[in-house]
Amino acid sequence: MKTAQEIADYLGANLIGNPENKINSLGSLKHADLGALTYAETDYLNQVPDTRASCVLVPSGQFPNQTVILVDNPRLAFAKTSQWLFPFKSPFSGIHDTALVDEQAVVSADVAIGAWTIVESGAHIGQRTVIFPGCYIGHNCHVGEDCIVYPRVVLYPNTRLGDRAIVHAGVVIGADGFGFVSNGEQQIKVPQIGVVEIGSDVEIGANTCIDRGTFDTTRIDNGTKLDNLCQIAHNVQIGRDTVISAQTGIAGSSHIGNQAIIGGQVGVGDHCHISDRAMIGSQGGILSRKRIPSDEVYWGTPARPLKDVKIQQAHIGRLPKLAQEVKHLRAELNELKKPSTRSSSD
Amino acid sequence: MKTAQEIADYLGANLIGNPENKINSLGSLKHADLGALTYAETDYLNQVPDTRASCVLVPSGQFPNQTVILVDNPRLAFAKTSQWLFPFKSPFSGIHDTALVDEQAVVSADVAIGAWTIVESGAHIGQRTVIFPGCYIGHNCHVGEDCIVYPRVVLYPNTRLGDRAIVHAGVVIGADGFGFVSNGEQQIKVPQIGVVEIGSDVEIGANTCIDRGTFDTTRIDNGTKLDNLCQIAHNVQIGRDTVISAQTGIAGSSHIGNQAIIGGQVGVGDHCHISDRAMIGSQGGILSRKRIPSDEVYWGTPARPLKDVKIQQAHIGRLPKLAQEVKHLRAELNELKKPSTRSSSD
Amino acid sequence: MKTAQEIADYLGANLIGNPENKINSLGSLKHADLGALTYAETDYLNQVPDTRASCVLVPSGQFPNQTVILVDNPRLAFAKTSQWLFPFKSPFSGIHDTALVDEQAVVSADVAIGAWTIVESGAHIGQRTVIFPGCYIGHNCHVGEDCIVYPRVVLYPNTRLGDRAIVHAGVVIGADGFGFVSNGEQQIKVPQIGVVEIGSDVEIGANTCIDRGTFDTTRIDNGTKLDNLCQIAHNVQIGRDTVISAQTGIAGSSHIGNQAIIGGQVGVGDHCHISDRAMIGSQGGILSRKRIPSDEVYWGTPARPLKDVKIQQAHIGRLPKLAQEVKHLRAELNELKKPSTRSSSD
Repeated sequence: MKTAQEIADYLGANLIGNPENKINSLGSLKHADLGALTYAETDYLNQVPDTRASCVLVPSGQFPNQTVILVDNPRLAFAKTSQWLFPFKSPFSGIHDTALVDEQAVVSADVAIGAWTIVESGAHIGQRTVIFPGCYIGHNCHVGEDCIVYPRVVLYPNTRLGDRAIVHAGVVIGADGFGFVSNGEQQIKVPQIGVVEIGSDVEIGANTCIDRGTFDTTRIDNGTKLDNLCQIAHNVQIGRDTVISAQTGIAGSSHIGNQAIIGGQVGVGDHCHISDRAMIGSQGGILSRKRIPSDEVYWGTPARPLKDVKIQQAHIGRLPKLAQEVKHLRAELNELKKPSTRSSSD
Repeated sequence: MKTAQEIADYLGANLIGNPENKINSLGSLKHADLGALTYAETDYLNQVPDTRASCVLVPSGQFPNQTVILVDNPRLAFAKTSQWLFPFKSPFSGIHDTALVDEQAVVSADVAIGAWTIVESGAHIGQRTVIFPGCYIGHNCHVGEDCIVYPRVVLYPNTRLGDRAIVHAGVVIGADGFGFVSNGEQQIKVPQIGVVEIGSDVEIGANTCIDRGTFDTTRIDNGTKLDNLCQIAHNVQIGRDTVISAQTGIAGSSHIGNQAIIGGQVGVGDHCHISDRAMIGSQGGILSRKRIPSDEVYWGTPARPLKDVKIQQAHIGRLPKLAQEVKHLRAELNELKKPSTRSSSD
Repeated sequence: MKTAQEIADYLGANLIGNPENKINSLGSLKHADLGALTYAETDYLNQVPDTRASCVLVPSGQFPNQTVILVDNPRLAFAKTSQWLFPFKSPFSGIHDTALVDEQAVVSADVAIGAWTIVESGAHIGQRTVIFPGCYIGHNCHVGEDCIVYPRVVLYPNTRLGDRAIVHAGVVIGADGFGFVSNGEQQIKVPQIGVVEIGSDVEIGANTCIDRGTFDTTRIDNGTKLDNLCQIAHNVQIGRDTVISAQTGIAGSSHIGNQAIIGGQVGVGDHCHISDRAMIGSQGGILSRKRIPSDEVYWGTPARPLKDVKIQQAHIGRLPKLAQEVKHLRAELNELKKPSTRSSSD
């Protein structure tokens, strides 16, 4: 438990109000209880006087009956403070009696491994990592330090996870890529013998799938976040600090840069190149081998620059009017062309 | 085993044919065997004379060689009768020796818990509920009465399920919502400390994911049905008796009303409001913060009223003709404008 | 370990170079090591001189410093050779002590079953099949010979898998189809009592879901390949040697022919008929009850022949120009119609 003043000190920020307020929970502006830390972004400052929270991170303003800390970016300050106040605590410790850890696996002493989790030979589990019940950590996998692996995650052999990775329940990493070649009749399986390497500080949402490389490596770099039910195909390369929303699929051998933001249900074709800080709107579809420039916003299927999509949609919206105008032009032109009309006026 | 007459009595409906026919199975009109109950909707009444079923629920008609029961809605009557004739029966009973039920969990005496299922401390499992093997029921979860939880389901801590819920294999409920805030370089995790509350009579399809609220509650109300591989993000609120087809995703903080019908692969942006009884066509995309009025049918991306989409598609379909007409107008106008032409006729 | 010459003999093809080169691995042209077999398609032949691989399958060309085998289709020859050189080898054998195999199940002597896998009564597991840890093989399931079932797969009761099937982690086969009928207020569950039958040589990607038939059978025929996170609804029939990419959904009762190719994130409505060898582009949406002719390529939502989609997109792309032209026509026509203008010239 910290005081409001200790939080202000942690943030290097000014507190107005009661520095002795005790903080023992987190909450939303609306529903927080006494003892909670919360935050308010500019649009919600009018709700600050009514919150029951004991300390509010705000960007500005006067709140005589509240204890507030003034910060530039309240949501960011809140996220950082939350992790400092309430770091993840494993609900269990040690290696459960029923876990099957191969004697050829290397597991640090302070690792927690839940019931019925399997750690195969050659695997390495880094310090302070928590692996929940029912996971399968294949042969030669490497899981870094301070990772959290939720129940029923499957890591196929040779998968590598960096430090502080969070992997949610039901995730499958390292299954065979979808590679076949037709002999004219049947589809013959192309061997999928590569691996998956995932950096540090990556978070992977529930039931997401990341396939192993065909020969080489499917790679997700440090700090990237994947939402639930995403599909990352073989040989894909994703850069640092990129965010990919739920149900998005990245097809084989595509590259995604650093700090890109990909919406939900986006489909990226194979061999695409999405450059740094590009944004793809939800449900967008990038055609195979397409290159998206850095810092651009694309949308639609096939995806194009958002501003072009908007212009096009406006044009489509005006089609009924355009068709009407063409009809009028036709009628008026026909009238003009009537020789009788003109001659009568002569 | 019931007789045809007992079924007619259950439905309060008239039987024509042999009231003594024994019913011991269910089947389709085409493939049902002797002893089966089946049904025929109006379009399929011509197949009734050929069925081998021992009793057919029909809306009308004369079938001299068959035993039929006359009902208003044969499919509905069939569904209700099926549940009455053949209620779900657990293939096992009791708590399996290998299940790990925490001594701080409350499990009713007639609950069935399969092998290697974990029920953590503080969890409550209601009467007659069946939990198949390999499930993970986290700390403080509440599972109501008469629920069926199929293999390998994961409920994160504090998840609540009402009575008679059916949860299919691989479902993950309560994983962290996808919430990050950028510090300019990295994405900082926003704590996800809310819960998931699911009402009674809800069915959830295989491998579907429902995220916990950020601070508060992700809520799915009584009677709502989700198909396989759906994504329900943090803070989403879904009303009563709503139906959501496979692979649909609902982004954060969106509200969906009662008795709405959402097609497959639909994407609903964040902070949307879909009103009661609205229908969204498959693959439709609702932009963030959009409001869909009650009883309306929307489709397309961005979704608009279906009738507008159809008009627009018709206009787009006529574009080649329109372009041709504009070409003709241009040619004819140019002809009219030629001074020589006109002067020559003077 | 084989020699390059033995591989040439296996392929019935000519070798140029050192027939004694030993092959003990596979690799890509770019990253292969000494000892590796690789292949080069026509566009990559310029990289052949630089590879470190010990044998390259090529369609043609002169490579004085390399050992090459001349084949018509290098990728196909590589796929076949790979399977011959390095057949799947189970990392474990026998039935693990902790596996629960019902005494009423029939399991061949050379089957491998991993820890904590359940095989229920009446199930049959064919020769040489490998079932990884944590799977659930329901009552009366039939798994053929030489299958590979990866961790945490769930087969609901009565599911049938042919020979040499590969089922990746997290797959759920046989869950209830999504069938409800409204009583005006609530959705009443229609019983789902059919089964799933999957042929031989089928591969199913991670976390994919295949629902049981309502009364009859959901069927996937020999040689068909499904990628990750696909949804196959109740009563769907899929033919032979068809390929379906990730995150695609096929709604209830649809038929897909033989050797069809369906892209990623495609949505096929209910009761569709997609004929043999048809291709559907990624993110395409097929409306309910639509019929796609054989050998045709369709794309878009609603899907139409690809060539029509391209023409339409070109027309839409020219809309700004068209609108401009109509504006000019209007201005010029108005000018022509001015009586003053004309009379002044009189």
